[in-house]
Amino acid sequence: MNSFGQLFRIHIFGESHGSIVGAQIDGCPAGIPLQEADFMADIKRRKSGAKGTTPRIEDDEPILETGVFNGHTTGAPLTIIFRNSNTRSSDYEHLRQTPRPGHADFVADEKFGGYQDFRGGGHFSGRLTLPLVAAGVVAKKVAHMVSISAKLTEAGGTEQIQQAVDTAMAKGDSIGGIVECMVRNIPAGLGEPFFNSMESQLSHMAFAIPAVKGIEFGSGFESARMTGSAHNDVFIDEDGTTQTNHAGGINGGITNGNDVVFRIAVKPTSSIGMVQQTLNMKTGEMSKLQIGGRHDACIALRVPVVLESATAVVLADMLLQAQKVPRIW
Amino acid sequence: MNSFGQLFRIHIFGESHGSIVGAQIDGCPAGIPLQEADFMADIKRRKSGAKGTTPRIEDDEPILETGVFNGHTTGAPLTIIFRNSNTRSSDYEHLRQTPRPGHADFVADEKFGGYQDFRGGGHFSGRLTLPLVAAGVVAKKVAHMVSISAKLTEAGGTEQIQQAVDTAMAKGDSIGGIVECMVRNIPAGLGEPFFNSMESQLSHMAFAIPAVKGIEFGSGFESARMTGSAHNDVFIDEDGTTQTNHAGGINGGITNGNDVVFRIAVKPTSSIGMVQQTLNMKTGEMSKLQIGGRHDACIALRVPVVLESATAVVLADMLLQAQKVPRIW
Amino acid sequence: MNSFGQLFRIHIFGESHGSIVGAQIDGCPAGIPLQEADFMADIKRRKSGAKGTTPRIEDDEPILETGVFNGHTTGAPLTIIFRNSNTRSSDYEHLRQTPRPGHADFVADEKFGGYQDFRGGGHFSGRLTLPLVAAGVVAKKVAHMVSISAKLTEAGGTEQIQQAVDTAMAKGDSIGGIVECMVRNIPAGLGEPFFNSMESQLSHMAFAIPAVKGIEFGSGFESARMTGSAHNDVFIDEDGTTQTNHAGGINGGITNGNDVVFRIAVKPTSSIGMVQQTLNMKTGEMSKLQIGGRHDACIALRVPVVLESATAVVLADMLLQAQKVPRIW
Amino acid sequence: MNSFGQLFRIHIFGESHGSIVGAQIDGCPAGIPLQEADFMADIKRRKSGAKGTTPRIEDDEPILETGVFNGHTTGAPLTIIFRNSNTRSSDYEHLRQTPRPGHADFVADEKFGGYQDFRGGGHFSGRLTLPLVAAGVVAKKVAHMVSISAKLTEAGGTEQIQQAVDTAMAKGDSIGGIVECMVRNIPAGLGEPFFNSMESQLSHMAFAIPAVKGIEFGSGFESARMTGSAHNDVFIDEDGTTQTNHAGGINGGITNGNDVVFRIAVKPTSSIGMVQQTLNMKTGEMSKLQIGGRHDACIALRVPVVLESATAVVLADMLLQAQKVPRIW
Repeated sequence: MNSFGQLFRIHIFGESHGSIVGAQIDGCPAGIPLQEADFMADIKRRKSGAKGTTPRIEDDEPILETGVFNGHTTGAPLTIIFRNSNTRSSDYEHLRQTPRPGHADFVADEKFGGYQDFRGGGHFSGRLTLPLVAAGVVAKKVAHMVSISAKLTEAGGTEQIQQAVDTAMAKGDSIGGIVECMVRNIPAGLGEPFFNSMESQLSHMAFAIPAVKGIEFGSGFESARMTGSAHNDVFIDEDGTTQTNHAGGINGGITNGNDVVFRIAVKPTSSIGMVQQTLNMKTGEMSKLQIGGRHDACIALRVPVVLESATAVVLADMLLQAQKVPRIW
Repeated sequence: MNSFGQLFRIHIFGESHGSIVGAQIDGCPAGIPLQEADFMADIKRRKSGAKGTTPRIEDDEPILETGVFNGHTTGAPLTIIFRNSNTRSSDYEHLRQTPRPGHADFVADEKFGGYQDFRGGGHFSGRLTLPLVAAGVVAKKVAHMVSISAKLTEAGGTEQIQQAVDTAMAKGDSIGGIVECMVRNIPAGLGEPFFNSMESQLSHMAFAIPAVKGIEFGSGFESARMTGSAHNDVFIDEDGTTQTNHAGGINGGITNGNDVVFRIAVKPTSSIGMVQQTLNMKTGEMSKLQIGGRHDACIALRVPVVLESATAVVLADMLLQAQKVPRIW
Repeated sequence: MNSFGQLFRIHIFGESHGSIVGAQIDGCPAGIPLQEADFMADIKRRKSGAKGTTPRIEDDEPILETGVFNGHTTGAPLTIIFRNSNTRSSDYEHLRQTPRPGHADFVADEKFGGYQDFRGGGHFSGRLTLPLVAAGVVAKKVAHMVSISAKLTEAGGTEQIQQAVDTAMAKGDSIGGIVECMVRNIPAGLGEPFFNSMESQLSHMAFAIPAVKGIEFGSGFESARMTGSAHNDVFIDEDGTTQTNHAGGINGGITNGNDVVFRIAVKPTSSIGMVQQTLNMKTGEMSKLQIGGRHDACIALRVPVVLESATAVVLADMLLQAQKVPRIW
Repeated sequence: MNSFGQLFRIHIFGESHGSIVGAQIDGCPAGIPLQEADFMADIKRRKSGAKGTTPRIEDDEPILETGVFNGHTTGAPLTIIFRNSNTRSSDYEHLRQTPRPGHADFVADEKFGGYQDFRGGGHFSGRLTLPLVAAGVVAKKVAHMVSISAKLTEAGGTEQIQQAVDTAMAKGDSIGGIVECMVRNIPAGLGEPFFNSMESQLSHMAFAIPAVKGIEFGSGFESARMTGSAHNDVFIDEDGTTQTNHAGGINGGITNGNDVVFRIAVKPTSSIGMVQQTLNMKTGEMSKLQIGGRHDACIALRVPVVLESATAVVLADMLLQAQKVPRIW
């Protein structure tokens, strides 16, 4: 279903070329100062314009429709919407018979029987990460004692990110990247054994971000190649501080008080300017496909703030469940 | 919470050295033939005894306590328990002040304030994967049209698995490994955009398995290093078959009808025979720790059947949600 | 939390004097014809204007913001909003210190610490039944094989409804009423033993309607005064038809194929024109309170369509869970 | 589904004539003293033996299988089971073709396609209220600051309860009754507007108790016959105390700090000794049915402790959600 969370629960909705996209939050504590201006910094980080991201000008003005009164959250459902504009639907009409490789065109048709809004990816569009970022702004306020920061650590297999992006752009191609997220000041004891482990919750949410194809905590896949004697983190302080952090701050599914560290793999943007092959589903013949317009050469450039937001949403919920949110805003 | 699933919902419970461990399933369709013997093959795959796994003899006899009548599921809650025996609690008593590195001892104390059953890991024990495997046996019957198989593809960083295990055992050390899961005959259209993507569901469940620290779908982390032109899977058949399967059978969070392929990283067993350092939480001094008894040199050896079970549980639920379960048992 | 349902899940949001009220539906099947005009009949039934209901002119135009494309539902989250207008907030400001008897003013203050939008009842307002009715319109389309009809059977303790309303209006007082709901053509087998019995689900939802203080199924409270030999419904047909329907179509929490019949008690409107006593929470002294403006003398007059909608929402979800929704729209 | 609650979540399972019935609780706080003896008082209140209840001797010994260690809850899933004994299945075999009026025999067959355990009502049996009472014992410990007491206020339409029971028994008939529940010391602010109103939660749970056909809060159905000027409760103290309590302690779905008062209607026991008519589903002919064995002439006699338990389960969850549970056990 289209919801995440137990006590702090979010929903996102809308379509790329419909009238709006938006987020709704149930269970947001009352009394948190909140106004439109609070969203701008993170929205700007996500916004188009950086080299390697599409320059399409979107109307990214948040509107606080419900749940805010006199500049504070009320405790009632909080609704944030963004009106869409400057959409050119005609770009997409001819793609119906020739699903774009790597995109959700084909699966949407399978799942929704042809009734989906196919314009610009419809509900599957990356534009839906905009309300996710907005929800993250609120979640960061709830989880105020925790510090969350994510950054792109490599793209196209190299740490020379800008150069890799330029090369891809020049070819009309795209590249993927790795985004690392670090959570500091996170209390020990968050998460559950088994089904709601901290890794389960964070990964569940991380894979809600389009284009994410992998996640690892602490030493992650490298730990599969290590010995126990090297991997085990030695406790050096009664607060649980360990000498190393191969566990990424999580033992047995539960935070141990060290920094929570994880990385996600972002695949290369599916939309590329180069000519591709695809199947014409009507004629059954292979055909050439060239996707017009401008595209993100490296969607991973935009992902850090989205991953931070996703992480904040998870932690806000888990901190509330653990009754570890000081009501000081 | 201690539950997973919407329509096919499982719970697991119990402690390593308590009286029982068990699983309960709500929403299991009525009329599925089910008897104790059905569980033995998968339980045996998980069971101790293989070289590199602990030879502790456990009583792994499933008891169908509720939800089965005249050899078929009834549709009422299904309860499967396993009685514990041959436990030697005295092994563990002295570890309370000196939490074992890599284990949940410390976090359990933080979360449950010292009231947790600390014997043999208590509720955090790997023994809880036994009821998970049992639930998987039922889930495989529900998801009968789908074929799920997992295997250990490397351990200790090498494909020479037995050799790597032997080396680790000789040193009293342990090693991790990579387990790959392949799902064949899975229908297109399973999963939801965003919060309940197929990757979100599978990863949520995979991280419920102790010692898992990473997961990747299709090309996974390698995709972060690829170009879009290389990564995009070209459709070659109207049923959605693609030439390559970099996407691991999932686009936009939804299955595309190709095999779903994913890999998990299993960290090295935390319990090792070698002497380790840890902090005495009472005295505040570093102390030497040697964990007695026999240990799995490579817990990853046991993981394939557990991962299959976890996967089956997810798919049973998603297939029921999508109304794609033929009621032929 | 602010959600109801498993597979067909609704949320309602907004405030009486804020910018919007609205409903969101997750899990609505794709392909259902839907346009703004479809909502008007039920909205009109609920709307102000009837004698005994407040003549305040509200802007009750539904806007389908997401989840609809080319006149059909898409399967993505469906958002319906209503813009508020013609609100006179100044009416309410002075009530903050003197909570209105029978209203949520006092409890909202307790729960939300004074941050609630207190204008016109805010999120507690009966205006929130407007999006509930809108959700019901969609739910009725999903549950199309079922016929749901509710009617006011008495008000102010008499079946002479209009006369009772007139009398109350003349005094500036208000009256309650009884609304009966009948569900025809409902298949046998819906509902679960115990926690999700049909009665549990319907009552859960019915008590979401403001002013409802009681519910009874079949013979209800009268059954407490009957003997078993009189109450037991005798089966007279293999399809489960019974001679009488004291059970209200439900045995053991599960529909038996007979009409589901239930009644709700609606308390008299809390807002009355007469002078009342209340406590001034600031001074601690009793004070006189007269609530200005026009009020519904009998809010129960508006409830039938709201109860139908609530019922439809429950049944749409349960029919989808039971896989009993023919996809013919 | 077979679960209730968000943070304090219970499951019940088992069959009347199977091996066990039981309850499981997720989210029970760690550190609560708990032993088998704690359950005996409430189990005894529910137990057979009182005049008008069936004298069948059941083995009602609770076994704490998981989640308790050293006499305290551990925070892990808590499992309480009861072994069944002294069951005489042969009593029931011949009833398959002739479903008992008022029972779930027919609907179980419709829902579970004949695979249900039909012996003694199977999973639908009133014996499942035994684990519900057990869960209630734990819930009362969690919700320790609240006082919950229920009593039978009338049976067979009269307050002369014993006499009414005797009369029914003499005829081989049965009677229903009214049970009233009073909750004292409940804090203001519990419950949510709309879908999770306090009435919604309590009624959802109350209708999980077999034989309940109605519920009303405060003045309930009587309020439908009152005027607003008579019904509105006047505040007389800043803590929210009201002069009258027509609202039953709940405004706008949220507790107002006054006692929560509600009543449920319990139908007459369906099993009666008198000869009844029913349809033979195989032959299509009406046939006489006489249910052998001993029966409760008034099942409502046993309901008060069950209703208290159900109420405690709801309140434990809501108090935990509201972070209003002092961790003093």
